[in-house]
Amino acid sequence: MSTLLEQLIESLRVLPGVGQKTAQRMAYHLLDRERDGGKRLAGVLAEALDHIGHCAQCRDFTESEICALCASGSRDRHQLCVVESPSDRLAIEQATGYRGLYFVLHGRLSPLDGIGPRELGLDALSARLAQGEVTELIIATNPTVEGEATAHYLAQLARQQGVRPSRLAHGVPLGGELEYVDRGTLAHAFGGRSEMS
Amino acid sequence: MSTLLEQLIESLRVLPGVGQKTAQRMAYHLLDRERDGGKRLAGVLAEALDHIGHCAQCRDFTESEICALCASGSRDRHQLCVVESPSDRLAIEQATGYRGLYFVLHGRLSPLDGIGPRELGLDALSARLAQGEVTELIIATNPTVEGEATAHYLAQLARQQGVRPSRLAHGVPLGGELEYVDRGTLAHAFGGRSEMS
Repeated sequence: MSTLLEQLIESLRVLPGVGQKTAQRMAYHLLDRERDGGKRLAGVLAEALDHIGHCAQCRDFTESEICALCASGSRDRHQLCVVESPSDRLAIEQATGYRGLYFVLHGRLSPLDGIGPRELGLDALSARLAQGEVTELIIATNPTVEGEATAHYLAQLARQQGVRPSRLAHGVPLGGELEYVDRGTLAHAFGGRSEMS
Repeated sequence: MSTLLEQLIESLRVLPGVGQKTAQRMAYHLLDRERDGGKRLAGVLAEALDHIGHCAQCRDFTESEICALCASGSRDRHQLCVVESPSDRLAIEQATGYRGLYFVLHGRLSPLDGIGPRELGLDALSARLAQGEVTELIIATNPTVEGEATAHYLAQLARQQGVRPSRLAHGVPLGGELEYVDRGTLAHAFGGRSEMS
């Protein structure tokens, strides 16, 4: 039988990027200096895991049936932006002036890991596009191999429903130096050059 | 009013080394993939914070009145090793063949932060040394300025009670190269050289 302290260290390892040493340091830190904060964490964590589910419309995390963003009356309902994760949604929301709605995949197509269209909620997305309200599907999956494959799949889905698909621009990042940009990105940026006005 | 998700992210920041971004990633990870592990963590954390206190003898963390090590009949009760933290105790226990007992300070003397002999439990240590069972006090505080000051204080305390104080050896680490060893350590190692047999 292991002691409570050993169980605590073991349990902390479910956190991403936390190994044995870090878990140990966290446990000692909580016991030594953060008992109140630790108790609040335990309470909030239990409550969050019990009550936070997926928004029925966009699949983002929410404790309500429909998330605040989907329920908002001030967003443009003709644009729908598809992202892989809630943090991607947050990044776009914070960086751009986008006023449309989102759809969160919680992953990307990855047949080898058993993640198909069904796991990403693409049947619901397809049904949503069929309703005719959405006119543009902005595909903001990551520029990785799997993200690109997912983007192609989504574009096809959109076209089938008569919705115009678009993709975030690839190119040289602002502030980057050409010398250090990888070859794929540079080739893409070169091919996609636009006339200066 | 913040949402449950925002509260969860905020609560995770009590963990050492966890900022806004990491807390966000942890929250999404738990909600996405580790709901069971997260629930277990919440339960164990609440229980640990409620039940884990300090051993009445060595001040190490334990859920009992006396920790397993202090209660063990097979340890040498004449040697007492003083460490700053439970992780230091663990490191010594795993690396050396030491069979004596420990005393955990949970800190070091630091008057500016309001940490004096009382906060480190040195009155209890003094009383323990006065009982006469301990003959050697092995001082294993860290080789930092505050750790050294604490070591000097502890040595004095030991001498007052007629107990022999000893200190971990300083010197060149095994596998290290002289060229890269800092000057203080090298000077210490040079001054403390021993005759080869």
